Amino acid sequence: MLCVDVFTFQAIDGPVIGKVVASGNNKFVKGDLVLGVFTWAEYCFVKETTIMRKLEPSEFPLSYHLGVLGLGGMTAYVGFFELCKPKRGEKVFVSAACGSIGSLVGQYAKLFGCYVVGCVGSQNKVAFLKDKLVFDDAFNYKEETDQSSTLRRYFPEGIDIYFDNVGGKMLEAVIDNMNTFGRVAVCGATSEYIDIRKRASLDLVNVIYKRIIIQGFLTPDLMIHHFQNFMIKTSNYLRTGELQVTEDISLGIESVPSAFVGLFNGNNIGKKIVRLVEEEE
Amino acid sequence: MLCVDVFTFQAIDGPVIGKVVASGNNKFVKGDLVLGVFTWAEYCFVKETTIMRKLEPSEFPLSYHLGVLGLGGMTAYVGFFELCKPKRGEKVFVSAACGSIGSLVGQYAKLFGCYVVGCVGSQNKVAFLKDKLVFDDAFNYKEETDQSSTLRRYFPEGIDIYFDNVGGKMLEAVIDNMNTFGRVAVCGATSEYIDIRKRASLDLVNVIYKRIIIQGFLTPDLMIHHFQNFMIKTSNYLRTGELQVTEDISLGIESVPSAFVGLFNGNNIGKKIVRLVEEEE
Repeated sequence: MLCVDVFTFQAIDGPVIGKVVASGNNKFVKGDLVLGVFTWAEYCFVKETTIMRKLEPSEFPLSYHLGVLGLGGMTAYVGFFELCKPKRGEKVFVSAACGSIGSLVGQYAKLFGCYVVGCVGSQNKVAFLKDKLVFDDAFNYKEETDQSSTLRRYFPEGIDIYFDNVGGKMLEAVIDNMNTFGRVAVCGATSEYIDIRKRASLDLVNVIYKRIIIQGFLTPDLMIHHFQNFMIKTSNYLRTGELQVTEDISLGIESVPSAFVGLFNGNNIGKKIVRLVEEEE
Repeated sequence: MLCVDVFTFQAIDGPVIGKVVASGNNKFVKGDLVLGVFTWAEYCFVKETTIMRKLEPSEFPLSYHLGVLGLGGMTAYVGFFELCKPKRGEKVFVSAACGSIGSLVGQYAKLFGCYVVGCVGSQNKVAFLKDKLVFDDAFNYKEETDQSSTLRRYFPEGIDIYFDNVGGKMLEAVIDNMNTFGRVAVCGATSEYIDIRKRASLDLVNVIYKRIIIQGFLTPDLMIHHFQNFMIKTSNYLRTGELQVTEDISLGIESVPSAFVGLFNGNNIGKKIVRLVEEEE
């Protein structure tokens, strides 16, 4: 295998790019590059029923197919365009905005013509969003005591769209600050995964009076209809340099556990990937 | 005035049917019946800017225009058909199912071909839903200690649609029991109005993995597009007797305060109305 995406579907499986070393399936031959949900391992046996596809040679680095051109990019794209249904000039808030998905959502929103603010967990990341990814603004939620009044400061005209990667108290604060007909795409709930006491207690009266839509989604449902558009648009943005790709790559199978745990500690900026072998394309 | 709908928009205003006793507006003459949002009073002065319309003589009792043919009926209709987008055979849960809106949602859902269960606050109301309104089933939430396992009992195949009038713990329990692509129309949050500690703490991981949509709405937004269909369909159901109208009418202006408070104590079955004068149509 060549690269491992440490966002897991099961305990020890995840999106992986590998090179076929032997094949009993006539669709694949030795030396083919393949993308699928495989075991986190240097070598693994792949059943015929496993969903995988051959990766044709492309102008982009291999790792892009696990991130900006893979599930993460697609999630940012369909979550923002299909669920949030943005209009130019709308005010967009993104949490975990330095993550693999959040960083792309913010950039798609900026390229589309929205006003974008991100929240992150360090000053370092705030600077990254404002200087490297040209978010309109960003803040470190750990330095704020009242997220609702913080959002009021960054969105004096209210929030139209919230791309939610964290859930919890931040979602409550967003509902307080949302405009009428606001939309929330629920992509992740990292603040709740470990402690269910941190779940968001929603102000439903606000949800009603502001006619807010809160919608959970999984990208594969929407992939069929939007894959082609996503690939064309995103590849073009990459070629023109309008879309910045941020990857946090560690080396060797031994770095998988710390890479995985790091996701929940907010260690990474951009897409977290483990490169298993130096030899690549 | 003739009838007062005690669901208030402001402290002392609400949907009212009145008879014009004097008019300086040439669109209305003495004796006209009018429907608008007026003061809770036997007589009141109506400004020219007040939204009101003349009620033409109809085959139905006047009070129907405050309930089944008015805002309540419209709310049940657009909330169910437009937000919940039902399919025949789907499993529908309605809270506050004996209320003016819930009782109609359940009936629309049954007439459409769904399986419908309602929850209410007394055995009397359970019997009413099952015997008079032919809900498939109903339960008294006050007799249950764990709403999530209660819902599992009534929906062994899961809930597809939830028409929410109460919010709070019941919404949490619904999310536990919802099927993939479930829809929640948030119409009211009576369990939270008085005590914000009772707000629903949503399991967002479930919202994501089940791709649930939670949507607040206000009926006037949707009225323009659906008013005609609603009136035609609902009038037909009333003529054929397929739709049961339930009203809880008290008499005299002096009964307004207790009628209003009663809404929050679950006293009424069906639409709560105060008839101000005996003389009518």
